[in-house]
Amino acid sequence: MKIGLDVLGGDYAPNSTITGAIEAQKTLQDNQRLVLIGDQQDCIQQIKEAGADPDKFDYVHAPDIISMHEHPTKAISQKPNSSIAKGFELLQNGQIDSFASAGNTGAMLVGAMFSVKTIPGVLRPAIATNVPKIKSGYGILLDVGANADCKPEMLNQFAILGSLYAQYIYGIETPKVGLLNIGEEEEKGNNLTISTYPLLKENTKINFIGNTEGRDLFTDLADVYVCDGFTGNVVLKLAESFYVVTLKKGIKDEFFDRFNYEQYGGSPILGVNAPVIIGHGISSPEAIKNMVLLSKDMIESKIIDRIKSAFN
Amino acid sequence: MKIGLDVLGGDYAPNSTITGAIEAQKTLQDNQRLVLIGDQQDCIQQIKEAGADPDKFDYVHAPDIISMHEHPTKAISQKPNSSIAKGFELLQNGQIDSFASAGNTGAMLVGAMFSVKTIPGVLRPAIATNVPKIKSGYGILLDVGANADCKPEMLNQFAILGSLYAQYIYGIETPKVGLLNIGEEEEKGNNLTISTYPLLKENTKINFIGNTEGRDLFTDLADVYVCDGFTGNVVLKLAESFYVVTLKKGIKDEFFDRFNYEQYGGSPILGVNAPVIIGHGISSPEAIKNMVLLSKDMIESKIIDRIKSAFN
Repeated sequence: MKIGLDVLGGDYAPNSTITGAIEAQKTLQDNQRLVLIGDQQDCIQQIKEAGADPDKFDYVHAPDIISMHEHPTKAISQKPNSSIAKGFELLQNGQIDSFASAGNTGAMLVGAMFSVKTIPGVLRPAIATNVPKIKSGYGILLDVGANADCKPEMLNQFAILGSLYAQYIYGIETPKVGLLNIGEEEEKGNNLTISTYPLLKENTKINFIGNTEGRDLFTDLADVYVCDGFTGNVVLKLAESFYVVTLKKGIKDEFFDRFNYEQYGGSPILGVNAPVIIGHGISSPEAIKNMVLLSKDMIESKIIDRIKSAFN
Repeated sequence: MKIGLDVLGGDYAPNSTITGAIEAQKTLQDNQRLVLIGDQQDCIQQIKEAGADPDKFDYVHAPDIISMHEHPTKAISQKPNSSIAKGFELLQNGQIDSFASAGNTGAMLVGAMFSVKTIPGVLRPAIATNVPKIKSGYGILLDVGANADCKPEMLNQFAILGSLYAQYIYGIETPKVGLLNIGEEEEKGNNLTISTYPLLKENTKINFIGNTEGRDLFTDLADVYVCDGFTGNVVLKLAESFYVVTLKKGIKDEFFDRFNYEQYGGSPILGVNAPVIIGHGISSPEAIKNMVLLSKDMIESKIIDRIKSAFN
């Protein structure tokens, strides 16, 4: 198993990525190799300085950086030696089994769709994120930004993608799928959700429990919350801001702690032909470590094969 | 001034509505009369039992109730002696100057549009709600549910409605208007927000500050956040659920306290020809009291005339 990590992605790269990689490597077995994609000499030097063994890692030299504000499509094509472009080249060629980066989200999305490509049958990939449940554990919310405008058929597919992720990554047997909406009744909603409801209801690949509302997101009502990428992104950023407020106010609580993105490392792009994970721009070493471990989980669980089968 | 209150609306009516009305009346001047719409004899008896003076109120007998789950349009037309239908009849005839209810939201919306009607030039009324700012005070978010699907021209009008409300009810001199979106840059967003941005930019009646994101909602970035009613409703209910979590966890904090709907009483329907306020279904006496005081503010500020002028 080869786990690809963009060493140059994220606001605190390469320090936080290297430190996170070293921590992650300690938990890996010999046949699980972490492939560091970035400036090779710089990586080796930093690993040595940290007192770790550079031989425990593989390296691919790709010293160029796609910054946070570059145009995704342009950057990917114009910077073949950037860590992100190189990462997707390796992933496409099967030289790594997963690719994770805390860098430019748009470039990660574009790179994934142009290199390993969308799984046949999937209309559009979606970005999923964790939502902590008040009692314990996590639910999944998708899409959180890959598709600002959605069609009902896309939401119906997101339900399948999210269910498989909840099942095989979180071990939830028959994940409950809720449609994020503005009323409980079947006829409530906007044009999109009203048209999506009957599709979800008839979808035999999921366990649809009906409409859910903003207030239900942190409850046990559903395990997978499905929405368009606009709504999901607004919800995600709003929830993050609440967490930041509790941090600033020094409020310690087990539930709020689980909003900490560091604990789950990153958000997968579901619906492409390989495990691809996007980390938070402000990723700490702990977040990078957990992003690597999530990469490993995605490879081990064969989630991509399971998605392919579902859309076959 | 005649302030209309639906005594039968809300989960804890008529006890909470009567108690709230008694508290509100204590702060009113002699020429500010509270008109209680519901079962007249029952009202008078409860006021007496509470040790208050029934002569300090006006009454309109309307003993029928439109329950929370009745179909709005049917209920309004089939129950002319319901407190909500009667309230709108009085409002339309100028017998009251404002109407507030913690009852069926849909019936309030339909009642407002069918009786006092939409202000000429306004495409669709919107429901506005308060969002507490972390530092102090409140911002406005609209629409939070009147219009699940919106056109850019509607959002452009919501910006004007919200600005006037922020200015004349909250006393914010030149309210900053933000478009709730999923990126800071002008070209980011879904079809709706991308098409709305240039309209807001060219709108000389507002102080447009650009795109805002979910994470900005509680900051000072804007005073008025504009979005479609689907997004707004999801955001509103999510924010409420956070507040409920902090309550359940016994977290006391001045910022979280300001999420308490009781403090601001209710949400105005902006864009109709009279002040109409919708209260939370679970309204307490304190919430009812503040809903009455908000009604008074809306009448005194001449907010309706100001909206009419803006759309003239």
